[in-house]
Amino acid sequence: MAKAVLDKKLAASVNILPKASSLYFWNGEIEEATEILLLIKTKTSKVHTLSSYIRLMHPFEIPEIFSLPIDRGDAHYLKWLEESMKEE
Amino acid sequence: MAKAVLDKKLAASVNILPKASSLYFWNGEIEEATEILLLIKTKTSKVHTLSSYIRLMHPFEIPEIFSLPIDRGDAHYLKWLEESMKEE
Amino acid sequence: MAKAVLDKKLAASVNILPKASSLYFWNGEIEEATEILLLIKTKTSKVHTLSSYIRLMHPFEIPEIFSLPIDRGDAHYLKWLEESMKEE
Repeated sequence: MAKAVLDKKLAASVNILPKASSLYFWNGEIEEATEILLLIKTKTSKVHTLSSYIRLMHPFEIPEIFSLPIDRGDAHYLKWLEESMKEE
Repeated sequence: MAKAVLDKKLAASVNILPKASSLYFWNGEIEEATEILLLIKTKTSKVHTLSSYIRLMHPFEIPEIFSLPIDRGDAHYLKWLEESMKEE
Repeated sequence: MAKAVLDKKLAASVNILPKASSLYFWNGEIEEATEILLLIKTKTSKVHTLSSYIRLMHPFEIPEIFSLPIDRGDAHYLKWLEESMKEE
C-alpha cells in the first residue's frame, strides 16, 4: 500500500510503524487485532483522492482513514514535499 | 486502559503502539522511561470525559493526555465511529 | 537528539518510537530507509527555534520536521509542560 500511494504520486513519504495491537468495536463487540499504522505525508489537495484509493485497495471493510492538519513545517521539507509530488 | 475506555463508550478504537522510550522533565531533571503510547480515536464531545477518566485510572501523577483534531476522515469510517460510540 | 532538545529547553518531552521503515522520494526515485520517529512535545512559541536546531543537528539533508497543533490537553499536563520549559 505504501509503495502504491507513492507510485501514484498521492503522497511524498510514508512511515510504516511496527505492528501495533488495536481494540475496536465491530458489530457491537470489542474486537482485538494486530494492525500496521501508516503515517502518510501528503498535500491537502490530495487527501480526498488518497482516501478513496486506500478504501479501494484496503482489505478491511472500513479501514481507518483520517487526516491531521500540519500546523507548521520546515521550509525545506515543505518544498521537498511539493516537488516530490509533482506529476511527471 | 484501552479496553476500559471502549467499555465505557469513551472511544471507538485504540491503537496500542509498541514500547517507546521517553525523555521528560521531572522536578527539573531529565528522566528516561519506557512508555506505551495509546492512540485513542473518539468524538470531540467525549474528549473531556475521556481525559478525566484516564487521569483517574492512570498510574502516573501527570499522564500525558492531549487531543489532536482530525481534519478530514473517510465518510464510512466517521459513520462507523459515530455508531460505535452510541450508548446502548 | 532527544536529550539535546530537552537540555536546551526547546521541548518538555520526547517519545522515541521503535524503528519504522519509511518510503520517500529522493531525486525522483522511491527510496526505502529505516527511521526513528521522535514525537517532541513543545510550546508553539518554541516550534521555529526547535525546527532550526533539528535542521542544524540532523544528519539528513532534509529531515522531516513539522508540527501538529494540540487541540485540547489535560490541565495538569499543560501546566507541567509550561513549567518544564521555564528557562533557569
